[in-house]
Amino acid sequence: MSTVTLVCSGQMASALTFPLFENGHEVRLVGSPLDDEIITSLRENNYHPTLTRTLHDGIKYYTSDQLEEALEDTDLVVCGTSSFGVDWFLENVIPKIPDGVPMISVTKGMIGKEDGTMVTYPEYWKENLPEGVEQEIFAIGGPCTARDLSDHDVSFVAYCGDDLEKLAKIKDLFSTDYYIISLTDDTVGLESAVALKNGYALGTAMAIGIAEELGDDGIAHVNSKSALFQQSVDEMAKLIELVGGRPENIMYAAGDLDVTVAGGRSRSVGELLGRGYSIDEAEEKLAGQTLEAVVIAKRTAEAVKKLAERGIVDEKEFPLLMHMNEILVDKKPVNIPWKAFETVRKEEENV
Amino acid sequence: MSTVTLVCSGQMASALTFPLFENGHEVRLVGSPLDDEIITSLRENNYHPTLTRTLHDGIKYYTSDQLEEALEDTDLVVCGTSSFGVDWFLENVIPKIPDGVPMISVTKGMIGKEDGTMVTYPEYWKENLPEGVEQEIFAIGGPCTARDLSDHDVSFVAYCGDDLEKLAKIKDLFSTDYYIISLTDDTVGLESAVALKNGYALGTAMAIGIAEELGDDGIAHVNSKSALFQQSVDEMAKLIELVGGRPENIMYAAGDLDVTVAGGRSRSVGELLGRGYSIDEAEEKLAGQTLEAVVIAKRTAEAVKKLAERGIVDEKEFPLLMHMNEILVDKKPVNIPWKAFETVRKEEENV
Repeated sequence: MSTVTLVCSGQMASALTFPLFENGHEVRLVGSPLDDEIITSLRENNYHPTLTRTLHDGIKYYTSDQLEEALEDTDLVVCGTSSFGVDWFLENVIPKIPDGVPMISVTKGMIGKEDGTMVTYPEYWKENLPEGVEQEIFAIGGPCTARDLSDHDVSFVAYCGDDLEKLAKIKDLFSTDYYIISLTDDTVGLESAVALKNGYALGTAMAIGIAEELGDDGIAHVNSKSALFQQSVDEMAKLIELVGGRPENIMYAAGDLDVTVAGGRSRSVGELLGRGYSIDEAEEKLAGQTLEAVVIAKRTAEAVKKLAERGIVDEKEFPLLMHMNEILVDKKPVNIPWKAFETVRKEEENV
Repeated sequence: MSTVTLVCSGQMASALTFPLFENGHEVRLVGSPLDDEIITSLRENNYHPTLTRTLHDGIKYYTSDQLEEALEDTDLVVCGTSSFGVDWFLENVIPKIPDGVPMISVTKGMIGKEDGTMVTYPEYWKENLPEGVEQEIFAIGGPCTARDLSDHDVSFVAYCGDDLEKLAKIKDLFSTDYYIISLTDDTVGLESAVALKNGYALGTAMAIGIAEELGDDGIAHVNSKSALFQQSVDEMAKLIELVGGRPENIMYAAGDLDVTVAGGRSRSVGELLGRGYSIDEAEEKLAGQTLEAVVIAKRTAEAVKKLAERGIVDEKEFPLLMHMNEILVDKKPVNIPWKAFETVRKEEENV
């Protein structure tokens, strides 16, 4: 039996308590400074108000001011912050993790540097560790909604990191018959794949919104949605390669795109945009939700634009991303550049 | 204005009359020997009984015995047969195509050879042309349901062939603002991608059937469906590489998988299997429909088994395909081998 401390009690970290607790571990769930209401509810009757599920009785709950206590003698720390808490986690949590205790992150996203290069959160944390702090960082990617995981629907994810032996031991803590875990040492590939899918879920869901706006016209509109799905897979494959990930990770980008377009916040934004709302109106309608899709789409577009200025890529290779940027940054209406998706591909250009 | 003759009046070829006719071409639609009822209906009021759409008034309809007449002075022949008519088309139609007139095929599928190698239909036709017959063959792939194309939902496909200049001219005949066409000279890559997706749509849809069988359990079951989608993308990527296609074609495999899982016959088979029906029962329920998914899944599994015997691949790399084979050939019940999907991937193994 091990002790696992999950920091930030959002939906995903809280869902991960199911396999961990069922495997017999001591499970400690720590709220972020914004999670007091969640912790209060959990302490009362184990009910998680945003996950809308009841956690196992026996999990230990902590408020953010009890972080040190929750980290005592722990064997693993799980980072469950949203993209918006990445710096907070770096400054306030990582320095308090006991020496030699690894952490694994479920936060999906990337940060763009000034020169247009993009780094995953594990890379960003490692590059910016406070002086004297060492921290081994692993990460989780793949298609997994928190509610389905809580409900024991079979979920197939990947864990990544440099030390595959240590990663296999971490996997053992989580592995159940309904939580299927592959391992890879390609952190950049996996993390970029599952970060990008949030942006492209927004892009793909625009077709769903456009169809909804047309009303009950008797048309299935599956072709146009799959057209955007297909274009997303192509652009994501190129972007994974651009940041140095291995091509095999397209499976996670596509799988995670599929689950995200099926439901969730990233889909909701795209859907509203497709229905004709501006991004400001869409964000107002979804107020209070963390819109990772908007963040990653903007960051990726900005990075591609910078790399294009340096002659490293051609913006024309990413017409869907560039259109998302027009919508999100320049506040333009949705007008999908279908004809810009057309390519002519010859052997010599691709070998 | 050109003249285009579409042979076989199934749903897809008939849907292609929309862009062709709207572009001002003379459009001739020829029934196969099994299509007499369709042609009779079309002649009466342009209504296509299986497509359930009314074609444009002005299209010329022919029964199979009028093939020669329909081919007179035509500029392009479109092959719209199902997988089951590939040899019939080779023997009865191709020899009658006037010299120098190209053909383009919408038939999706592959044929396995004795040694385990798989060939696309364009390759198969070229290798087996009757003596003295020459025929230039192009092909169409990508996510496109016939009904959505008929309804002018935006569709994004790819056309392939060796001669990209000639292919660009063929594209011009079809191209409209709702029919988006990329070009590639990677016939094997595109055709294998869109053939394989039929088999894997069956595989992915099993999760949908399993969820349906559980009834209204309050669980979204999007994770398990995306898990199979993801595994399918991974296995398809490996198979595209195995047959010599370029990796970029995974976009078409994933896009076409998305549209096929959204609806259609391949999904229906997988759904019924997931709900607990045997393949014999499922085929009985779907009697009268051409089940391309079953054909391609069996053929691909057989090819992989033969290649495994020769030491070229490892069956364990394709656990979903092998399970489909157990279901379709050995008549076993669905029991998805989730744990077999788990991999450990290291840099040295993938570079």
